[in-house]
Amino acid sequence: MADYQTILTDLSDGIFTITMHRPDRMNAFTERMMHEMIAAFDEADADDAVRAVIVTGHGDRAFCAGADLASGAETFDYDKRLDRDSPQREDGSVDWKHRGARDGGGQLTLRIFNCRKPVIGAINGAAVGIGATMTLPMDFRLAADHARFGFVFARRGIVPEAASSWFLPRLVGISQALKWCYKGDVFRAEEARAGGLVQDIYPAGDLLAAARALATELTAESAPVSVAMTRQMLWRMMGADHPIEAHRMDSRAIWYRGRQEDAQEGILSFLEKRPANYPNAVSTDMPDLHEWFDDPEF
Amino acid sequence: MADYQTILTDLSDGIFTITMHRPDRMNAFTERMMHEMIAAFDEADADDAVRAVIVTGHGDRAFCAGADLASGAETFDYDKRLDRDSPQREDGSVDWKHRGARDGGGQLTLRIFNCRKPVIGAINGAAVGIGATMTLPMDFRLAADHARFGFVFARRGIVPEAASSWFLPRLVGISQALKWCYKGDVFRAEEARAGGLVQDIYPAGDLLAAARALATELTAESAPVSVAMTRQMLWRMMGADHPIEAHRMDSRAIWYRGRQEDAQEGILSFLEKRPANYPNAVSTDMPDLHEWFDDPEF
Amino acid sequence: MADYQTILTDLSDGIFTITMHRPDRMNAFTERMMHEMIAAFDEADADDAVRAVIVTGHGDRAFCAGADLASGAETFDYDKRLDRDSPQREDGSVDWKHRGARDGGGQLTLRIFNCRKPVIGAINGAAVGIGATMTLPMDFRLAADHARFGFVFARRGIVPEAASSWFLPRLVGISQALKWCYKGDVFRAEEARAGGLVQDIYPAGDLLAAARALATELTAESAPVSVAMTRQMLWRMMGADHPIEAHRMDSRAIWYRGRQEDAQEGILSFLEKRPANYPNAVSTDMPDLHEWFDDPEF
Repeated sequence: MADYQTILTDLSDGIFTITMHRPDRMNAFTERMMHEMIAAFDEADADDAVRAVIVTGHGDRAFCAGADLASGAETFDYDKRLDRDSPQREDGSVDWKHRGARDGGGQLTLRIFNCRKPVIGAINGAAVGIGATMTLPMDFRLAADHARFGFVFARRGIVPEAASSWFLPRLVGISQALKWCYKGDVFRAEEARAGGLVQDIYPAGDLLAAARALATELTAESAPVSVAMTRQMLWRMMGADHPIEAHRMDSRAIWYRGRQEDAQEGILSFLEKRPANYPNAVSTDMPDLHEWFDDPEF
Repeated sequence: MADYQTILTDLSDGIFTITMHRPDRMNAFTERMMHEMIAAFDEADADDAVRAVIVTGHGDRAFCAGADLASGAETFDYDKRLDRDSPQREDGSVDWKHRGARDGGGQLTLRIFNCRKPVIGAINGAAVGIGATMTLPMDFRLAADHARFGFVFARRGIVPEAASSWFLPRLVGISQALKWCYKGDVFRAEEARAGGLVQDIYPAGDLLAAARALATELTAESAPVSVAMTRQMLWRMMGADHPIEAHRMDSRAIWYRGRQEDAQEGILSFLEKRPANYPNAVSTDMPDLHEWFDDPEF
Repeated sequence: MADYQTILTDLSDGIFTITMHRPDRMNAFTERMMHEMIAAFDEADADDAVRAVIVTGHGDRAFCAGADLASGAETFDYDKRLDRDSPQREDGSVDWKHRGARDGGGQLTLRIFNCRKPVIGAINGAAVGIGATMTLPMDFRLAADHARFGFVFARRGIVPEAASSWFLPRLVGISQALKWCYKGDVFRAEEARAGGLVQDIYPAGDLLAAARALATELTAESAPVSVAMTRQMLWRMMGADHPIEAHRMDSRAIWYRGRQEDAQEGILSFLEKRPANYPNAVSTDMPDLHEWFDDPEF
């Protein structure tokens, strides 16, 4: 169990729940929370007992209220913030390869993008700034009926971060994405659903149960390695130039998977009309597809 | 007329219909059916009398029930299947350029992707596995009201194939695509329509007539070469990085087409308010746009 | 004030309105109109008093009726048109780098794509051919209830132009895009809205007021440099292969913007619960992000 200070984690019934937990700060996002959430996703990926991940926030008020503004006017001036390691060289130029030059939200959303388990956002309250954009690489977004959303960057004098310029137009279309990002207002869950950002809305007290039911529904009868590969294949092909890239990838994937025990069990259980019991595990039996699943260098 | 054993073909009123026809196997997909369907699309593209293609299945039960599982547990172990030419070398390594290393479904869907005529899926019954994924590069999917769909790969211990990881999220969005592929369940036509996979649902007895009416509506007043180029331009630009790629392509296309007889007839018939009679033919008058329309090597 | 012959321009309340104005030709598109509209967008981008752009057409009949067919059957034979500078060399080959080899519609739509202010199409009547495709790189399309649309290229013997093969499937999905482009018919605003092309429909007399209200709503409380960058980031990432491209871009953007006065004002005004007064200007304070915002060469 990692020694987390800004999040809580829980594993039960195969569901790993990450709860942002800064009760006195509306679960606002900090460098430390970024590192802890990334570590929690590493835990979830490494543990074969984890079938799905839920991300939520502590309490009723906020999912995550955005970047912690305790640093005031210098919050986004990374060079002046004491909690960050500056990428600026002595001559004033910037080392763009330095980790401190990277947007913190984007480090988290790319980690979620790479997750091997289905990821469900259970948005229990205000999801603003990075609180909204961190949900975009999740597979599904369920919201409490009192939740609110805001891509407020243009009202803070900055720009959409966390790679949201890639994710948001793909989820809701370019016109809706631009409208929310131009205005920078905070809007209700109902508008989020009408615009395609949120799949379903629940009374606050039912939200987590609904997210857990969805997690179970998605994974109960499916082979874990198949689910992990499906997640990577579909998300990554969203940006591919030509379907032949998918054909190259899935030809190799079918070659590898077709000779694994899971494929035999999948067919036999189907022919014998009985539940399947898949022997392969994500931690040990993922095909070697680095060519497609490794990330480009920053 | 080719000597097909697993499909039927028919040409009438400019519509080329390909009917998967393995009555005792619910039209299940085999290597042979793959080759025959590809040959049928070659026929359709080469014949200027063909204005549109419809793909359907024989009988009421199945459109295509998926990969034929007659090989049992070794169905997806291509190295052990007798009906496939193995790409494995003597030292155990795999020749990825070998045709036998390529997923069969993807060879078909890339052929459909490259078709020069509008393609309509008339889904008359169960469309499962490759039976579902083969419909994704078709332009339109119409379904009988009793049809069912299933992206069941994760329940067979394999992964989405036929380049469906490229097509499906583009058609229905990433969240819906992941949900169907994670769960691997078989679902009704109504869910397919609600999710954006199917454009329209008809009583079984009306399905083919509706597909034929759509084929005619799409092509009746349009220049065949224009339709062929439109199909390639729109599908291929789905993956392009920047609109300048389309600008390069359509600048050359307009240059070529603007001096062809079709363009003159198109304008004159419009100005004279009479039906057009386009002289150019797909088999002979397609502009030379290999740079965009040729496929990358596998 | 530029000396325009085919358009009118107006700036009031921060909204720059471009009105296509060829009353006797249903605002049909010519080479000259292309150059004038591009110049008008240059004006809008250069003037910090402009917060948003509206494009509309003069009169009630037409937004823009398409390419002016006054040249008759040779309209799209660029080599024969006297108003164009031919890219054809003496030996008959074509200099594809020559500006005359470039589709005129595409030169306009790429200019709109690059605009730094939100762009709203107020479609007051017939929008046909380039009249329809020029609206695709606009952020929003509002239509008068009597407006009509037509992607009529296949009925004129040519092909979709103005890079519409890149834009249209991204806005309305591949099936809807193919249907309109195959058929080439002229259809009502209601069909355009149902298909996702148009966001809202208004009585003709209310259209411009609605477009102006939207322009104000989008920009009133947001930092102009943030809005300009948001527009470029979201549109350009529509074609990016991997979210890491957005992460690279927004990391640098946040670095630059985070130390600008706008970010300080954005945070302070929020913490102090007062309206913000952003000091940075698009003309002088845009971060240096040529790597992402410059266009590839034609």
